Formats: sequence, structure tokens, C-alpha cells
Amino acid sequence: MIEADKNNLERIKEVEPLIHHITNNVVKNDVANVTLALGASPIMSENPKEVEEIAAVADGLVLNTGTIQPDVAEAMLLAGRAANRETIPVVLDPVGVGTTTYRKETILTLLDEIDFTAIKGNAGEIATLAGADWQTKGVDAGEGDAELINSAKKLAKAYNCVVGMSGPVDIITDGKITYLVRNGHEMMSRITGSGCMLSGAAGCFLSVSKENPLQALLQAHLTFAIAGEKAAEAPHVRGTGTFRSALIDELYLLTQEEMKKNMIMEEV
Amino acid sequence: MIEADKNNLERIKEVEPLIHHITNNVVKNDVANVTLALGASPIMSENPKEVEEIAAVADGLVLNTGTIQPDVAEAMLLAGRAANRETIPVVLDPVGVGTTTYRKETILTLLDEIDFTAIKGNAGEIATLAGADWQTKGVDAGEGDAELINSAKKLAKAYNCVVGMSGPVDIITDGKITYLVRNGHEMMSRITGSGCMLSGAAGCFLSVSKENPLQALLQAHLTFAIAGEKAAEAPHVRGTGTFRSALIDELYLLTQEEMKKNMIMEEV
Amino acid sequence: MIEADKNNLERIKEVEPLIHHITNNVVKNDVANVTLALGASPIMSENPKEVEEIAAVADGLVLNTGTIQPDVAEAMLLAGRAANRETIPVVLDPVGVGTTTYRKETILTLLDEIDFTAIKGNAGEIATLAGADWQTKGVDAGEGDAELINSAKKLAKAYNCVVGMSGPVDIITDGKITYLVRNGHEMMSRITGSGCMLSGAAGCFLSVSKENPLQALLQAHLTFAIAGEKAAEAPHVRGTGTFRSALIDELYLLTQEEMKKNMIMEEV
Repeated sequence: MIEADKNNLERIKEVEPLIHHITNNVVKNDVANVTLALGASPIMSENPKEVEEIAAVADGLVLNTGTIQPDVAEAMLLAGRAANRETIPVVLDPVGVGTTTYRKETILTLLDEIDFTAIKGNAGEIATLAGADWQTKGVDAGEGDAELINSAKKLAKAYNCVVGMSGPVDIITDGKITYLVRNGHEMMSRITGSGCMLSGAAGCFLSVSKENPLQALLQAHLTFAIAGEKAAEAPHVRGTGTFRSALIDELYLLTQEEMKKNMIMEEV
Repeated sequence: MIEADKNNLERIKEVEPLIHHITNNVVKNDVANVTLALGASPIMSENPKEVEEIAAVADGLVLNTGTIQPDVAEAMLLAGRAANRETIPVVLDPVGVGTTTYRKETILTLLDEIDFTAIKGNAGEIATLAGADWQTKGVDAGEGDAELINSAKKLAKAYNCVVGMSGPVDIITDGKITYLVRNGHEMMSRITGSGCMLSGAAGCFLSVSKENPLQALLQAHLTFAIAGEKAAEAPHVRGTGTFRSALIDELYLLTQEEMKKNMIMEEV
Repeated sequence: MIEADKNNLERIKEVEPLIHHITNNVVKNDVANVTLALGASPIMSENPKEVEEIAAVADGLVLNTGTIQPDVAEAMLLAGRAANRETIPVVLDPVGVGTTTYRKETILTLLDEIDFTAIKGNAGEIATLAGADWQTKGVDAGEGDAELINSAKKLAKAYNCVVGMSGPVDIITDGKITYLVRNGHEMMSRITGSGCMLSGAAGCFLSVSKENPLQALLQAHLTFAIAGEKAAEAPHVRGTGTFRSALIDELYLLTQEEMKKNMIMEEV
């Protein structure tokens, strides 16, 4: 059942949750601006000496491994365990998990030590974590086909969390109920960090909807994908530079009504 | 007396001062672009092995604690002491001083070891440093009321420097003379790092007006707040993404005449 | 001979090379977005524990010393040697080589230990590396005069690589053949990291044209300078903030035909 009447977009602006992001060095500014555009407040410390204290006042935590180093991994472990103790939602964006041995080992340690509320990745990342032999098969991510859905469901079950897979078709699942979102725009894949911004947005939505993480993650995907469509149509947008600014604009402007009107989604 | 004929905006463009920023990882790009937009040149090193050598050629130093770590704190101490030896202005932006124990202790050490020309913060940061019990009282920052002014004046006297407090109404004081600036736009609080950009701008103004730091800081606040108003009115601006780019535009375009024409300020 | 029919702009979009950037903290986002705008994919790790593994899958490597620290220097050495073993092109952008002793020593070590395909810098940086007494002479960089050309040629011969010098007139040389590019726009020097974005673009071009690095570097300079001209003319651009977004737009939109039509270059 799609709870489209649960207006989490509005709720973020009311609650103004404080979201702690430990994210990669390429996208810190964009992730902070996405958080603010949605009505939440960002805090971006990755200092092991203060992340636990921050977790005690934060409403959500997002861990993104895009430029992970040993000291940042330590900060993530401390912050994640503290967030679990405080029972605030924790999102993992396992950027590049299939790229290097160090990254894979570090991400598996995070998954062992921290209870994640949600994992958000692209097809390759989710498949790597689910143990699927994805890359060798040339699966057409555009079709949101059975194999991709199975990877996402398998991962959700393995870690007892909700999983979001971004791509031409987004897949959002808790292992039982699965949604496909067909909104979005091609230019989103030609700017850096659109996936990272989405996982940042997921942290905002999850922080105001602890009782229903699947709906919260679904709405983060819908919000982001529909904002991307609208950004591509903004009058001054000519390419990826102006698109990136327009994407933040649309996240700032989007209402629940606009989201409902534009969403192309189904339960499978 | 408001020395509105002292055209520091023009002077920055003539002198092209080199401003050394040790700032947080979220806003480095924006702070560098603000510095360039005003006509100054940024240098952003936080390497303890080179910050002293940089201080010897720089015309101003800005220390911002937004993502401070032990190695960056060490670089700040070295750079700050060197700047004091070279008698170049030093600005402190004590981001998040009330958030964690580590941050507060580190900032108090910076204040002990370095003579600051100016401290720029938001109401909560200035009040924390001034020892006021601000957060518990729900002061309406919009009114620029007596308690906020007293915090700023107290801090200015305690550290023998000028203090700028950003908010709906900006307060700029040297402990004796106090100005209120009522320019600005609400969207400035919905982009990350607007306060950090302002403290970066303060470094530019202070570097060309050593003889009058209060006027320099006042003009930094005015410039920034008026640029924000103009940015919000730029024809293509729809939300915070385009606003952020437009803000840099207006800092690049603003003239002393425009500033004088638009400023809403008073001495209290 | 100018191989203007060699359409490397198109080839980047076909090959989609993976470019590994170890670059400064101010421009990481812009460099990644330039890479994507051209049709390549960026990876930005500076973790010594994974850079060698990344070099094995990357098609090009760009090292930029703008905010270099000891741990990043270590990552650069590991990545550079691995790239040499894999025979993928390596670009050096020696940002600030004349500014501090640490930076100069570190850059000379990189030049000793790594075979660079290309070095891209501004006039002062190239002259410093070539040993010229440039800064004391007040050379007019606008004229692309003999002394600047000689510095670039000397450096190209000394390290057996191609050299690109950015400025009002760009100089591109392999020590024998030398091109001057007179395209570009003044606003490029008023945004941070335009040189860093150009060296990032050089990595993209070199990765798809190993057989002719001089042409590849020339085309990177032409592409960037012409995109800058076009960005300055985009309808919504008013200052450096909107210019920066428009520059990425134009890199995304530029075709070989447009480049040929607009280029102002000569062989000297």
C-alpha cells in the first residue's frame, strides 16, 4: 500500500531534523545543500573525537564511502554505534564497494558492526553486496529486471533493512514489498554525486518517519527523481552545470502535490 | 560615524590581497570563489608543513572550525601565530563551538594562543563564547535585541577585537560602537556556508583596512547581505541552487554606490 | 600539423574512460563534473591503501598539488608508479610549486619518481619548474612571448613530456612543436580551479589519444578555452557564479565542429 498521504516532505520542514553526514570529499557541499533545500539541517563532522557527541543530538546519520580512509572509517564506526544506541536511523551508501579490496573489507566491517536502517546504492554496488555476479552478465539496468530486484531483496533480507537501488529504474524494497520508480532524467547520471545526494535525502526522510522506513526511502527516491525531471525542464538549463543548480532548486520547491501528480511508480 | 566614503570594495580590487583560508571541507570551493569574486586571491592550504611560509606572503588569514580535526587545529595554531608575527589580520569563525566538547576546547585554545582581529559567528556561537546562557532562553534573533548585542560587545571586549554576529539582523561591534545591519534574505540561511563565505569576505575587507577593522567588518556584512538581497531578485533564480550561484555573481558585481543605496543600518 | 580531424571530443564519449584524479580539496567537485561533462568517468580516491588497485582499472591519472599533504603525496607516488607500470597517461598540475619549500620539494620528488605524459601549469609554475627567473621580470603573460615559450619548451625537453601553460594566451608544446591558443575569457581567472579543471580535462583527452599526447593536450586547451568563451555569452550569466555553472554546460555541449569554427590558434 502506498501511503501517498503521508506528507514527509512537509514533515521535514516542520521538524527540521539535524542530519549527520559522513560523506565523501567530492560531494560534501552538494549533500549539505540538498539537506537544507529539503528543510533539514546538516552537520558534516568526520572527527572521531566528536562524532559520538554529535550522534546524541542528531536525528539521522548517513555514511557514504566515496573517499573513505582509515580515520574516516573509524569515525563511521563510532558514529554508527552511537546512532544505534540512540536509535536514530542510519543510512549506508556503499560507494565503490566493488572497486577495491580495502573498500569492500571496510564496508563489510561497517555492515557487521552497525545496524543500518537503509542501504542505498547503484545496481553494481547492491549486487556486489548481495553476492550476485552482476557485472559479468551485462544486465540491462534500464528494465529493472528480475535479477536486479532479487539482489535488492536479498540484501534487504540479509541485513534486515530497506534497500534502494538507483538507476534508470529505481528499486526500493524491504525484502517483501518492492516498488519501482520510473521517474528521473538522464542528466542525473552526468553530474557527480547524484547518488550521494539521494542517500543524503534518504537520511532526511527516514529521520521523520521511523515507523515506516520503506515509505520514507520510497519518498526520497520519488522526490529526487521528480526534482531531476523538473530541473531538466527549468528555463535556463542548457547542460549539466546549470542542471546541478536547478536540481537543488527543485528539491527546495517540490511539494507533496507535485510529487503525487508526477510520480510513475508501481508495486511489483 | 559611518565612513561610507571609504571604498574598501574598490580597494580590494586594486590591492588584490592574498587571503589564506583554513576552512571547513564543505565550503572550501565557495569561500575561494567569494574571495575571487571580490577581487582578492585565495590560498587554502592546511598543511602544517607550509602554513607559516604562506602567512609570510599572505595579507590576511581566516580560520574556520566547521570540520576541524587535530591536524587542522595544529595548522591553525602555526598559521595564526605566524600571522600575528607578520601583523596581518586574523579572522575566527568558531563554527559549531557549542556542539561538541572537542570543538569548544580547540576554539578556546585558538583564542588563547592567537590574537584575532575579528570573530564572526551566529548568535549561538557568539553567545557560547561570551558565556551567555543563550540557547535556553529562546531569544528572538530577529530583533537584534539587547541580550544579543550584549553578548557581542562582551566578546569584543574580552578578546580586544571586533565581533560580527550574523542573523536576520547582523550585529557588528568593537565593544563600544555597535552597528545593526538589517539587509539580507531568508534564502541565505537555506544554503550551506553562507556564514563561512561571510567570514571569508571579512578577511578580504580587513586585509585592505587594517586601520579600521570595525568599518571593514561592517562593510563585509553589508556587502554580503546586500548581495544576498540582489541574488534573490536575479531573473533566473527559482530556489537555493540558483540563488547560491547568483550570490557569487552579485558579490562580483556589487559597487560601493549600490551598497550605499541599499544599506539598511543603524548605530545603536 | 594540426590534426583537426581527430575528433577526440567524440572519442571520449565513445570510450567513456575512467580517470583517476588525486586533486586538491577546493576543486574536487568541479573536476569530477568536468570529467562527466566530457563523457568520461571520475574516481577521486587519495587513499594510499587503494590507489594502486584503482590505477589498474583506470585509463588516466591526474595529480594536482593544490592542497598537498604528506599522506596525499604518498598516495600520488603509489598511484603514479602504478600508472607508469600500466602505461596509462599521467598528468601533473604542480599547483603552487613556487609558493612553499615543502610543495617544491614534494613536486620535484614526484617528477623524479613518476614519468609524466603532460605537465599543465600557469606561467609562474612552469617557469619555476623550468628554473627560469620569471617572477622578477614582470613578463607580460598576455603576449605569449619568447621567454614563456622557452620555459615551456625547456620543461618539456627536461622531462620528455608535453607541457601546457595556461594564461591569456595558452602555450602547448612537446619541446619541438609549439602551439599558441588565443581563445578564452577573462572570467576564467576569477573562478577558483579553472586551471585544475583544465588539467582534469587533459587527463580525459590524453586517455583516448595515447599515440599523440601533443594533439590531445592542445585539444584539451582549445575545448576549455572555447567553452569559457561560450559560457560568458550564455543568456543567464551575470557574474562568476553563473559563469562557473555555464562553463560545465558548455563542456557538456561542445562539439568538434564548434571547436574548429571558434579556435584561434597558431603554430610558432
